[in-house]
Amino acid sequence: MADSEEVLHHDAMQRRLQEVRALLDRQKRVESLLHRQEMPRHALVETLVTKQHHNELTKRLDTMHPADVAYLLEALPLNDRLLVWDLVRAERDGEILLEVSDAVRESLIDAMEPNELVAAAEQLDADELADLAPDLPSEVLQNVFSSLDVEEREQLRAAMSYAEDSVGALMDFDMVTVREDVTLEVVLRYLRRFDELPDHTDQIFVVDRNDKLRGVLSLNTLLINDVDAEVSSVMREHPLVLHMSDSAESASQAFERYDLVSTPVLDQEERLIGRLTVNAVMDFILEQSEEEQLAQAGLREEEDIFAPIIDSVKNRWAWLAINLGTAFFASRVIGAFEGSIEKLVALAALMPIVAGIGGNSGNQTITMIVRAIALGQIQPEAARRLYRKELGVSLINGVVWGGLLGLLAWGLYGSWGLGLVMTAAMTLNLLLAAFVGVSVPMVMARFGRDPALGGSVLITAVTDSGGFFIFLGLATLFLV
Amino acid sequence: MADSEEVLHHDAMQRRLQEVRALLDRQKRVESLLHRQEMPRHALVETLVTKQHHNELTKRLDTMHPADVAYLLEALPLNDRLLVWDLVRAERDGEILLEVSDAVRESLIDAMEPNELVAAAEQLDADELADLAPDLPSEVLQNVFSSLDVEEREQLRAAMSYAEDSVGALMDFDMVTVREDVTLEVVLRYLRRFDELPDHTDQIFVVDRNDKLRGVLSLNTLLINDVDAEVSSVMREHPLVLHMSDSAESASQAFERYDLVSTPVLDQEERLIGRLTVNAVMDFILEQSEEEQLAQAGLREEEDIFAPIIDSVKNRWAWLAINLGTAFFASRVIGAFEGSIEKLVALAALMPIVAGIGGNSGNQTITMIVRAIALGQIQPEAARRLYRKELGVSLINGVVWGGLLGLLAWGLYGSWGLGLVMTAAMTLNLLLAAFVGVSVPMVMARFGRDPALGGSVLITAVTDSGGFFIFLGLATLFLV
Repeated sequence: MADSEEVLHHDAMQRRLQEVRALLDRQKRVESLLHRQEMPRHALVETLVTKQHHNELTKRLDTMHPADVAYLLEALPLNDRLLVWDLVRAERDGEILLEVSDAVRESLIDAMEPNELVAAAEQLDADELADLAPDLPSEVLQNVFSSLDVEEREQLRAAMSYAEDSVGALMDFDMVTVREDVTLEVVLRYLRRFDELPDHTDQIFVVDRNDKLRGVLSLNTLLINDVDAEVSSVMREHPLVLHMSDSAESASQAFERYDLVSTPVLDQEERLIGRLTVNAVMDFILEQSEEEQLAQAGLREEEDIFAPIIDSVKNRWAWLAINLGTAFFASRVIGAFEGSIEKLVALAALMPIVAGIGGNSGNQTITMIVRAIALGQIQPEAARRLYRKELGVSLINGVVWGGLLGLLAWGLYGSWGLGLVMTAAMTLNLLLAAFVGVSVPMVMARFGRDPALGGSVLITAVTDSGGFFIFLGLATLFLV
Repeated sequence: MADSEEVLHHDAMQRRLQEVRALLDRQKRVESLLHRQEMPRHALVETLVTKQHHNELTKRLDTMHPADVAYLLEALPLNDRLLVWDLVRAERDGEILLEVSDAVRESLIDAMEPNELVAAAEQLDADELADLAPDLPSEVLQNVFSSLDVEEREQLRAAMSYAEDSVGALMDFDMVTVREDVTLEVVLRYLRRFDELPDHTDQIFVVDRNDKLRGVLSLNTLLINDVDAEVSSVMREHPLVLHMSDSAESASQAFERYDLVSTPVLDQEERLIGRLTVNAVMDFILEQSEEEQLAQAGLREEEDIFAPIIDSVKNRWAWLAINLGTAFFASRVIGAFEGSIEKLVALAALMPIVAGIGGNSGNQTITMIVRAIALGQIQPEAARRLYRKELGVSLINGVVWGGLLGLLAWGLYGSWGLGLVMTAAMTLNLLLAAFVGVSVPMVMARFGRDPALGGSVLITAVTDSGGFFIFLGLATLFLV
């Protein structure tokens, strides 16, 4: 972080956002006045006023942290966004593009010339470039690639070859290495030759001539030990190491469990190739929890809230189509019992209750199980215990809430038979919900699929159709 | 982290869990054999075999990181859990209690004697003690409190006086401070007198005689600059500072934006009182996303998957009751149209589709808006734009999907009127969903409530009852 950049507290950041908005507004008012000829439309005045505002904005932007500029860009409608983007100094384009959300990044890249993009990309490290690469036009990427030196090309290729959710995709190549047979004095002198250590350097990696990791020397250790001590005598010999192919998920669990700031990353030949730092892990965690939230609501990706309507429609289309399918199926289940409903119309009013409560209860079960699986707490031998427990919970809820609804149905329609069917159907549907709620994530996990994915849709589909079928079926058998 | 403790990779951790489980199983088999008298029931043999297993287990546990022991305890059923807990060395009880989930912590504390609890609590720092305090019996807490020195008591009181989601509750008091008028040489000598620097020390705080923060000196700066430089000449003068009353939410956003490892925390009189570190922030973020996930499914808190059924029933009760209420209301809306359904029973089969798709679409909208509000991207003046956009998306979806369903209804029931009513009802309900999906979080945010809370329940209630009302109402007007 350059020293000239401010770091802003949350409230200060909000105020800054307001200031920029106010400047943009003033600018727009001036332009519209000029446009409506209410001010002397003199090219010089226009240029001066505009220039003054632009200067003021540029000054603000220059002192802002790249992450804050990114935040600002995301919060502005497209026109204002591109105006501000134009005022950002070109040498900062790269780091800001890294910080903005995918949707906003797209809108910025669309507005840039190829040569601007090449210039922006060239400012980045190989690992950062790998993050940006998928969004760059291929001729720009080619251009950048040819400007890299051999080592950087190797790094870029390595970083791009790993899946998005692997350590290889999150790691960076900034690290300080030393040999084990030198003294701390030598290490201190070596460090003093740096202009700056890489961010998040909490430890120095100790490697041999072949880049094999011999241990790690934390700055903590370096600072408290006698300068005459040899590195090998104070380094930590078996630190946690990650491999490029490790899943980012398990790496982030390690960071959380052991409160790490950085870890060495090895390649297939067990050579030190880079490191993973806590900020990359935190970004990954936040992105993941966000994706889960969006997926839960059936959104493919984060939307730029200022994007055109058609983009939003596309983003939400798939989920609605799936739900339409399951809802239509449930509707046909009801259709099969139209004769019964015609004879006893109360069934139509009561059936959504049975289906709805089943869905809610099933979602509670599946959420618990998915969490427990994610934490690795569920072993195959625990399955029977879980079924017993969830079915037990459902039985209690079914008898209590189902009983209550049975009484209400009896009171409303004066038929104790209807009340009994209601209670029985609620209980059976809750048991079905519990069974499916445990089975779906367990089966998905068994087959190596993400148990969180789509479980909620599936369970709602089952409890809807199942609830209608059970309730209307029982009513047809015993009442009609 | 003590050097004798291993840090384990994800897979290694799973293997370790298996080993412990195997040991526990072997132990149980031996006990059951002894019990069934199939082995010579000799007190000495029993003791020896048990002892051997226990020793092996104890040895494993001793080398495990507290977080891993916690993980192990969470994954074991209650009996095994307490057996393992007994084998953990008493001086590690405190740090392990800090790591386990709330539900499991309760089960462990229940099994401990007051004097064991006091001993465990006394090993903790004031900030850690504050985390544990709410779960401790009050006589234990009293006992621990009286054993603290004045400074620690002050710290404990400060840490406990802040809300769970404030910086005060997450901070710690471990930090290194220096004066600004000394040279780096002096600082280095001072640090060398420490046995160990606090974890996550990436910077040293520079304070004056009154504990006012003058700046921060990063280890990075300390290591690369000339040892004769004075602290004041190389320190960063306006670092990001937090106050104890700041929200943990805004603090974690700052950590994410600026990739921080630690920040100074000031009290009301602007004196340096402690620091916030990235590991506390990461724990907070994970806990929060977990709570959101649980709340989404209507679970009050995380469940110990091995807890008795009744605990689970209590945890899920409230949500089911609310849903029962809204479902019952929707049922009464249908009840009001029973006459129409009796005449045209197809309505009963089609109405859940209208309600269901409305709920899904509304949840998509509310998820987008809540996210945008959380990121501070929505200003009051943007409201009109959002309504326009979401209503536009709904209109397109309504006409397209509603049109498709209208055709299906026409085909199934041979009534073009029914098809038209279906299309119109779908479109209107999707518009209602969009309107409510934007309004609910905006209004909640305006009144300073968490916009994420309960929005999903509310919108489903509206789109269910609203969907039934619109569809059956239109049908009654035009078809019956």
